[in-house]
Amino acid sequence: MIFYILGWILEIEAALMVMPALCAAIYGERQGIYFLIVIAAAALAGFLIVRKKPVKTVFYLKEGCVITALSWILLSAVGAMPFFLSGAIPSYTDALFETISGFTTTGASILSEVESLPRCMLFWRSETHWIGGMGVLVFLMAILPLSGGSNMNLMKAESPGPSVGKLVPKAGSTARILYLIYIGMTLVEIVLLLLGGTPLFDALTLSFGTAGTGGFGVRNDSIASYSPYFQWVVTIFMIAFGINFNAYYYMLYRKFKKAFGMEEVRAYLGIILGAIIIIMLTDYDRAQGFFANLRCVAFQVGSIITTTGYSTTDFDLWSGTAKMVLVVLMFVGACAGSTGGGIKVSRLLIAFKTVKKELHSYMHPKSVRKIRMDDKMIEHDTLRSVNVYLITFFTVFVASILLVSLDGEDLVTTFTAVAATFNNIGPGLAGVGPMQNFGSLSILTKYVLMFDMLAGRLELFPLLLLLYPPAWKQLLSRRTISHREI
Amino acid sequence: MIFYILGWILEIEAALMVMPALCAAIYGERQGIYFLIVIAAAALAGFLIVRKKPVKTVFYLKEGCVITALSWILLSAVGAMPFFLSGAIPSYTDALFETISGFTTTGASILSEVESLPRCMLFWRSETHWIGGMGVLVFLMAILPLSGGSNMNLMKAESPGPSVGKLVPKAGSTARILYLIYIGMTLVEIVLLLLGGTPLFDALTLSFGTAGTGGFGVRNDSIASYSPYFQWVVTIFMIAFGINFNAYYYMLYRKFKKAFGMEEVRAYLGIILGAIIIIMLTDYDRAQGFFANLRCVAFQVGSIITTTGYSTTDFDLWSGTAKMVLVVLMFVGACAGSTGGGIKVSRLLIAFKTVKKELHSYMHPKSVRKIRMDDKMIEHDTLRSVNVYLITFFTVFVASILLVSLDGEDLVTTFTAVAATFNNIGPGLAGVGPMQNFGSLSILTKYVLMFDMLAGRLELFPLLLLLYPPAWKQLLSRRTISHREI
Repeated sequence: MIFYILGWILEIEAALMVMPALCAAIYGERQGIYFLIVIAAAALAGFLIVRKKPVKTVFYLKEGCVITALSWILLSAVGAMPFFLSGAIPSYTDALFETISGFTTTGASILSEVESLPRCMLFWRSETHWIGGMGVLVFLMAILPLSGGSNMNLMKAESPGPSVGKLVPKAGSTARILYLIYIGMTLVEIVLLLLGGTPLFDALTLSFGTAGTGGFGVRNDSIASYSPYFQWVVTIFMIAFGINFNAYYYMLYRKFKKAFGMEEVRAYLGIILGAIIIIMLTDYDRAQGFFANLRCVAFQVGSIITTTGYSTTDFDLWSGTAKMVLVVLMFVGACAGSTGGGIKVSRLLIAFKTVKKELHSYMHPKSVRKIRMDDKMIEHDTLRSVNVYLITFFTVFVASILLVSLDGEDLVTTFTAVAATFNNIGPGLAGVGPMQNFGSLSILTKYVLMFDMLAGRLELFPLLLLLYPPAWKQLLSRRTISHREI
Repeated sequence: MIFYILGWILEIEAALMVMPALCAAIYGERQGIYFLIVIAAAALAGFLIVRKKPVKTVFYLKEGCVITALSWILLSAVGAMPFFLSGAIPSYTDALFETISGFTTTGASILSEVESLPRCMLFWRSETHWIGGMGVLVFLMAILPLSGGSNMNLMKAESPGPSVGKLVPKAGSTARILYLIYIGMTLVEIVLLLLGGTPLFDALTLSFGTAGTGGFGVRNDSIASYSPYFQWVVTIFMIAFGINFNAYYYMLYRKFKKAFGMEEVRAYLGIILGAIIIIMLTDYDRAQGFFANLRCVAFQVGSIITTTGYSTTDFDLWSGTAKMVLVVLMFVGACAGSTGGGIKVSRLLIAFKTVKKELHSYMHPKSVRKIRMDDKMIEHDTLRSVNVYLITFFTVFVASILLVSLDGEDLVTTFTAVAATFNNIGPGLAGVGPMQNFGSLSILTKYVLMFDMLAGRLELFPLLLLLYPPAWKQLLSRRTISHREI
């Protein structure tokens, strides 16, 4: 069963690489040949695996997690091949870093400049963001008929947020609806950017990066040299892609009250507004006008909280207050059920409510008050899983920081390198600031950060299971049994 | 009832100030007069309050928390008077900061140099550490007969750790035993330091600072200019005072197996050893010998993990790796049931076990495995309270960082200023490093840090309750009712 799904992943990846190959053909770039090679190899390997349908098609949460983790690793390992084979990125570690950074929608780059890269490579780099944003397994679910429960376990493992709800009874249909909203919004952004006079190539790649909340640009200065109109459109769409997609689903069905009443969405927009006001107050640049300041700050706040990571300015030069606000936003992240990363606003909301309930219980020791969100009671199990998630998050975070600190970089570089990759943002501060890159870090650090990017995108447990020895033992013994059965 | 206990606090404080007054008499310092003034005022005010015994002597956890928080604030407000009246610290805010830093055993100072201070002031400064280390309410319990349950609620509010156990059935006796161990160990340290040829004044003050894991020194270079013998004795005693006092209680009753088998103590010593090895490997100074290096590193690791905050070297100049290890140790903290601060090793152990259990539950969804420590099952309530504690901890931490960042200091200064006060350590890095001080920060920042010191020492909830409006409303309405009853 695991192999069957991995086979499909290869098929999908081969199909997705057709676009950069086409791009190479249009611009007459000879590097397109490498995409064709990888497409051929992946399609063949995938075909051989998929041909044999598995006997058992039901699996549980554990297998769902393992499949998800392995799928993403396979996806990245194969996705890195064009960069490596073409010599665009000479080291395979670096190519893998760049690809994982793409699929996990992090946008942290090891490249010191991107304008010399062939356009097909830049296209593939941005396309990985778009695929990773909504999730490749959610895509698979939308097109592949799997038995009911199994679907849900894949979706739980790949989708962000404390509780993954189905919009409609069938998980497969939910996946299709999500992808339709995703594609629709991306198209609107592309059209709006084209209307502003943006070249098609830039409109496509940067919309991919916005939609997946990725952050790879196609110019060396990220978004700084684009027009104010362009920057505003991107700002609004970054923030829009950070909103829980359930809100858009409600809007489609004209349930506007329900969509605008979502506590998480309101908190998310409130945080953005608050952050913009604080930074505007502490970092107002008199040389520019009010609106230029607002555009710059709103862009950066939207880019960081949604974990996109585009930049229009070197925010490493901002004041201590503004930088601290950005660092906090890195951890807050976007809404659950969006393409953004970070801890997610809903988890923090639940955490705050837990604290408030605790204070309440000091005063009324015998009262049993339930925590509510959107007027629904939050189940005990969700509460527990949020608590465990936060604790695990900080555990992995501290372990990563200690490993990365072996490089001996300064504290801000170490701290924000981990924060920016683990939360899938992209640029950090100081040595990994918006005008710097991750290329100079050690090999060990790069692998730790790759792990963090995957762990951040897949919300910890799928990746941690891969590192947990008893899980392997159990899986291997299962496989032996099923071999025997055959 | 609240007033009654606050009255006793004043009486105790008056009694404790007799020692610095004596110290002034011995050294013939005229500033002793200020201690006498404060003693007279506090004793009189306390006497007037204590004279009237309250009708109701039973109270619950909520009142226990409020009493504890108010006691500590009163203690600090009065304790700051000698510094302020004598002009040793001209600003009352600074004097209050210094006193809270003393009582909470933080050791963060606003003084740029201490050697010009009168000896009686230095003595009082160090004595506050000793009082705060074990807790003034625990002391009150040891001498004052209160009804059973009330005692326990005070102890729960003041003592560190996820679950406060009674060593013996009576809370009052437990308090007495704890204080006897505390006094005994302090005396042993004083004697050992005297044997090494330390002047009596230094031996007393620095033992007070070690016992309470405080960190105020009496020389400008903290501990750097003392002999190697002195530094080793202090290192060992710092680490010893960071061990759960239950272990000493077991040792007193010759239950050595139980004492050395405590998981928390083993983890604590393991972390210390690991940190020393990592720092030794990355920061070895060839100019000095192996033992000089070891002494320096062991001293600093012991000083930071126990949240004492003494220093023998400017560790702000250490490598990025070493500094990151120290920052992590700042958060780890010492054992529960010791005089040290921080998150506490036992909380982290429980958190790790929770993560492991979660991974296990992915593989065996139906299994119900309980988390154990020292072969005892951890109650669901303790688990929940640890989770809530950690979440509250990070919430308060982030809120403090945002407020302090308004000062516009660099990120490392802001981050470590909060970390060093909230965890009751003392020195941080960069602008608040071991060779710097907190004097130059803004008034707002100082009050935020004072709150953090108290919240850190009293483990959050007593202080947060004071900021929670419904708690005030309830307390005030209660008071009105009891007035009517009278």
